Amino acid sequence: MTETSFVRADARLPNQLRPVSFLRGFTRYAEGSVLVSFGETRVLCNATVEEGVPPFLRGKGSGWVTGEYSMLPRATQTRSARESLRGKVGGRTYEIQRLIGRSLRAVVDLEALGERTVVLDCDVLQADGGTRTAAITGACVALADALNGLVAKGSLAKSPLREGVSAISVGIIDGRPLLDLDYQEDFSAAVDMNFVITESGLLVEVQGTAEEHPFTPQQLDEMRDLALLGCRDLNLMQKQSLEG
Amino acid sequence: MTETSFVRADARLPNQLRPVSFLRGFTRYAEGSVLVSFGETRVLCNATVEEGVPPFLRGKGSGWVTGEYSMLPRATQTRSARESLRGKVGGRTYEIQRLIGRSLRAVVDLEALGERTVVLDCDVLQADGGTRTAAITGACVALADALNGLVAKGSLAKSPLREGVSAISVGIIDGRPLLDLDYQEDFSAAVDMNFVITESGLLVEVQGTAEEHPFTPQQLDEMRDLALLGCRDLNLMQKQSLEG
Amino acid sequence: MTETSFVRADARLPNQLRPVSFLRGFTRYAEGSVLVSFGETRVLCNATVEEGVPPFLRGKGSGWVTGEYSMLPRATQTRSARESLRGKVGGRTYEIQRLIGRSLRAVVDLEALGERTVVLDCDVLQADGGTRTAAITGACVALADALNGLVAKGSLAKSPLREGVSAISVGIIDGRPLLDLDYQEDFSAAVDMNFVITESGLLVEVQGTAEEHPFTPQQLDEMRDLALLGCRDLNLMQKQSLEG
Amino acid sequence: MTETSFVRADARLPNQLRPVSFLRGFTRYAEGSVLVSFGETRVLCNATVEEGVPPFLRGKGSGWVTGEYSMLPRATQTRSARESLRGKVGGRTYEIQRLIGRSLRAVVDLEALGERTVVLDCDVLQADGGTRTAAITGACVALADALNGLVAKGSLAKSPLREGVSAISVGIIDGRPLLDLDYQEDFSAAVDMNFVITESGLLVEVQGTAEEHPFTPQQLDEMRDLALLGCRDLNLMQKQSLEG
Amino acid sequence: MTETSFVRADARLPNQLRPVSFLRGFTRYAEGSVLVSFGETRVLCNATVEEGVPPFLRGKGSGWVTGEYSMLPRATQTRSARESLRGKVGGRTYEIQRLIGRSLRAVVDLEALGERTVVLDCDVLQADGGTRTAAITGACVALADALNGLVAKGSLAKSPLREGVSAISVGIIDGRPLLDLDYQEDFSAAVDMNFVITESGLLVEVQGTAEEHPFTPQQLDEMRDLALLGCRDLNLMQKQSLEG
Amino acid sequence: MTETSFVRADARLPNQLRPVSFLRGFTRYAEGSVLVSFGETRVLCNATVEEGVPPFLRGKGSGWVTGEYSMLPRATQTRSARESLRGKVGGRTYEIQRLIGRSLRAVVDLEALGERTVVLDCDVLQADGGTRTAAITGACVALADALNGLVAKGSLAKSPLREGVSAISVGIIDGRPLLDLDYQEDFSAAVDMNFVITESGLLVEVQGTAEEHPFTPQQLDEMRDLALLGCRDLNLMQKQSLEG
Repeated sequence: MTETSFVRADARLPNQLRPVSFLRGFTRYAEGSVLVSFGETRVLCNATVEEGVPPFLRGKGSGWVTGEYSMLPRATQTRSARESLRGKVGGRTYEIQRLIGRSLRAVVDLEALGERTVVLDCDVLQADGGTRTAAITGACVALADALNGLVAKGSLAKSPLREGVSAISVGIIDGRPLLDLDYQEDFSAAVDMNFVITESGLLVEVQGTAEEHPFTPQQLDEMRDLALLGCRDLNLMQKQSLEG
Repeated sequence: MTETSFVRADARLPNQLRPVSFLRGFTRYAEGSVLVSFGETRVLCNATVEEGVPPFLRGKGSGWVTGEYSMLPRATQTRSARESLRGKVGGRTYEIQRLIGRSLRAVVDLEALGERTVVLDCDVLQADGGTRTAAITGACVALADALNGLVAKGSLAKSPLREGVSAISVGIIDGRPLLDLDYQEDFSAAVDMNFVITESGLLVEVQGTAEEHPFTPQQLDEMRDLALLGCRDLNLMQKQSLEG
Repeated sequence: MTETSFVRADARLPNQLRPVSFLRGFTRYAEGSVLVSFGETRVLCNATVEEGVPPFLRGKGSGWVTGEYSMLPRATQTRSARESLRGKVGGRTYEIQRLIGRSLRAVVDLEALGERTVVLDCDVLQADGGTRTAAITGACVALADALNGLVAKGSLAKSPLREGVSAISVGIIDGRPLLDLDYQEDFSAAVDMNFVITESGLLVEVQGTAEEHPFTPQQLDEMRDLALLGCRDLNLMQKQSLEG
Repeated sequence: MTETSFVRADARLPNQLRPVSFLRGFTRYAEGSVLVSFGETRVLCNATVEEGVPPFLRGKGSGWVTGEYSMLPRATQTRSARESLRGKVGGRTYEIQRLIGRSLRAVVDLEALGERTVVLDCDVLQADGGTRTAAITGACVALADALNGLVAKGSLAKSPLREGVSAISVGIIDGRPLLDLDYQEDFSAAVDMNFVITESGLLVEVQGTAEEHPFTPQQLDEMRDLALLGCRDLNLMQKQSLEG
Repeated sequence: MTETSFVRADARLPNQLRPVSFLRGFTRYAEGSVLVSFGETRVLCNATVEEGVPPFLRGKGSGWVTGEYSMLPRATQTRSARESLRGKVGGRTYEIQRLIGRSLRAVVDLEALGERTVVLDCDVLQADGGTRTAAITGACVALADALNGLVAKGSLAKSPLREGVSAISVGIIDGRPLLDLDYQEDFSAAVDMNFVITESGLLVEVQGTAEEHPFTPQQLDEMRDLALLGCRDLNLMQKQSLEG
Repeated sequence: MTETSFVRADARLPNQLRPVSFLRGFTRYAEGSVLVSFGETRVLCNATVEEGVPPFLRGKGSGWVTGEYSMLPRATQTRSARESLRGKVGGRTYEIQRLIGRSLRAVVDLEALGERTVVLDCDVLQADGGTRTAAITGACVALADALNGLVAKGSLAKSPLREGVSAISVGIIDGRPLLDLDYQEDFSAAVDMNFVITESGLLVEVQGTAEEHPFTPQQLDEMRDLALLGCRDLNLMQKQSLEG
């Protein structure tokens, strides 16, 4: 990472995040509502608290946290057909929904939540790469707001959110690991990895795919280290946003 | 309309619109992108220009304009399931989509458009009554931007938009016609009508439904007159926005 | 309407209905079964009484009336694919089903009906324009028979049908309003409106669409007046049929 | 069959058909349109001639004949849900549709038909047992009319219908074979067989099912003989109808 | 069957089965698991015993036996698309599933089974004609194992399987009836019949189809006689397998 | 890994694979057909070579390799419903299918393959953990056979398979990394990772999920090292099988 001649299109350093922001209270009815931006990527993360849990959990004294994900048809440079009109949800959507749910459950004390479900709806308004990592990172803030709301109205004594969680992508372009790829970089990358990491620096999810250019064990280490840095920064910004 | 004691929850006059705004360029990839607000109702209207037309029009030298409509799950006070996950689109959605398409086609010279399709994606971010009227009114601005864009890049000599079009709801509460119902008013109204009216004051669509309290021919006249007023105002605001 | 030279293909006056008939008891199992004809349009309207109500009404002491609509594949001049085989029901079908249900509920005392559901199946055997208006008008007769049947067997003290309801189309051809369009006229009309009107002359539904030729407020008045006349005639014929 | 004390509910002999009628020209647009009655069972059989053939036959110089089958929701004593709304077609419907298609193709010279498709839509208006046999028997008459229509307008030199085909059910009740079961008999029968037989007495389809009371080879012979008699009678009635 | 010059591709006699085998215990979790071979046709028949019955049987003290059928995509010479990915199950699959269920129920004392369901999953690993007959014949062995298992663990005093059941195809090639057609023969056959026959020689199902070459009543007799022979042999092999 | 008291249920060492076998030629029609076993997990991997490529690749001179995955209903200890009958494919299935396709494409020279598609159908006959890793590992052998077949019949000069690829799971139980988890271990594991690794030791896919017990960066290293060992062994067995 010392080769000084390398320049990203937006002049970022290899280990630098895009500008990140969290706009809380973006819509008014959801228990938590955050418009998260990772550069030009914009995801609306709404947290809904519902009484009750899915059938497989009923009567077990545990709560549930789940996610849903969708892109508006014109979030992207060319329009995509709506999944509702195509009548079926694609594999990519399912993958991301499941990932969001697992990531958030990793930091919630589900028993302390009680028999409630929190649904995190992540709808991409504008997509410039990293929509799933932005979704997880923004959903964590919306979730915090929703759980704090339960505390504020006396339904819970303290928030069951154990710690924060965030996610970031890392890729390899021209043999060099880069943090937080935008769409153009993602398109050019030989490897695309996503990491979900807790505030305390533990790994919740590691997903790497390198269909055309398999990578070495050492490169895995380098990417992991970049992700740990990136998520530490994201976590700080989540906290500042919640305190703001 | 002279009974002075009547008060709407937000102190509006019976013939007064809610605050209306058009935020152009809300997303960056669509050829036209408008976030329209009718009070607390927020609809993102994205216009996409695609080359080609649906099969039934091919080779006829005519363009096409169509609409799609969806609500985010938590646009409403309680969460609704996604139509994509339920695997089918409900009747209400189809009704509104068809209405949006017909309303916009009424003011476009489809032959002058050439063999192109403009898709108007209307996604409700927040719903407080009147989502379909806000969608049509905002979509008209997005459409104007998209068509002006075709002129700007030289694809068309002039915009095929013949005039503006807007839509408004009218209802009857306690026997009194009221303009632009919010969710709470809509819920209490005996009659719910939607009018789509061109800039030149012609009627494109009239839809009234009064399941529980059928209304008199005279009340139809009163509602029509309110709608003509409301749409005249909306049309002015559309123009101001486009000039802004 | 004073221009004497105008002639409709079947020599009807502008304000004249096509020949209308109601054939009661067309099938033997339904609680009400009416084959209604509006000219060459034939719709079989079967009323089914079922104990119980949909989930959203359970335990509220109210009944329900709903409609379903379908066209046989070869009701039309060219064959259409079955919606069952295409695996989904089109937007037009949903629109009409919802319209039938609302129209009939407008004239039924749902509380007096008790926790029962009446389903009105409207299946078009032959289509020559005006299938939805014929369906509503015929379904009202089938509904009357079904509710009278509940009285006859002692389940109800009196019929919860408050009054009759009927429906008619009106359109504008060559600038002239015409009542009860057949398929050929519907195809040529600049405006197509459907009115649902109670026996006492109140409006239940008003639906007008004028994609290519928006119309003036005065034309709306003329069409409304024609529809009021037409529905008054239909209502007399419904009564004669039920007395016959 | 000599036990004199046995009486069918409608006093028919064991080898006697219910009253059968064919009402040709029942609807006006289809190329052939027959309302067939087997007792209280009523099936509307509409034949549509379309140019072209399914993909697997294109360019092979052969035509195609296919069938579709559906029951109106209230054809039966209690209402059934529409397959279009349930979003899928049941196994029974598929079985019957395939049976109708195979049965009619057995008597048509598909090469002489040329690259045309005849669709036989069989919609049950009222069901009292034997709907599939009535459908096949009525569809043959509708098909004859449609093919004669092609001859009449000069598209074909002679009808490609080689001979008639009809279908009948046979069952065993109290050990006794009975022809043409009505719904009540069908419900009580130990065995339910359907035979499709050509005018020249050849077997096209034999379908017997005896889930609860398997039957002997000799009983198969007795049922086959009853069916041969029944179809001979049906074929005569088909011919009389077409000559009438 | 005396014409000595006729030779089948594998030199079988007209009344000779292909080599048949039953491999019990093919998988380890199912209550009965049999890989049945009819020549090169291989079907894995797994029997699952579940507590409870479908809704229509609840509380009636009767059990249920049902079948499901599928082909692996590459069971055949050219690959077929998966029904799961096409999103719907074809008519042929439904037909065969229903046939398997009826065939097995014919030989089970459902009341003695108690409120249990046995599901017979028949998955074709390799298809060379006769997959449905192999499935029924193999499923009977898997069912026997599953029911014997209930006896072995004391849930039932004796097996509710009243007798064996098997199935075989018969066809007519060049006017000659042949037993147990392989794929190539099936393709060439003018008639294709399937018989399901109990150990005691009674007929449970008879299904014959002869779209292109209807057959005589005498040919039906000949095919039935071949099938009785074939099923007698299959039944002996089923017994040997269960004793082995 | 030095704590001597730890014992796996089957007495394996922490870094030991279950018994692995490849049964080539398991079915006769597929161009490659391998029954792979990882302990009690059995997956049938069939490779089909089809001329042509999906639409997005047409005319680009490149081939395609894709995977499909399914479990037989009774592959597992309790029966699961068929995805074909539920009418939709679950998210887990989509995830695995996409993983299989990407993994195999990573080792094929798609341009050298030419405009052909190889479909790898992986159907799980028996599931005891690790079905996706067994599927990838077995599919690689089936793919090798199918590509060698193209060479054998002269369609290709040499096989476009650049090197082998295999996959293995690693988990953490009681803080200890273990290779190749069976179902019981998988159920107990705090972390579940899957690695896909080429013959040359490069990483193609890394997927780790730790919903309940996030793990440290060091544990990621330990798991990666175990996986590198396991895949090296698997690759040797793949080669022996192909030479056998």
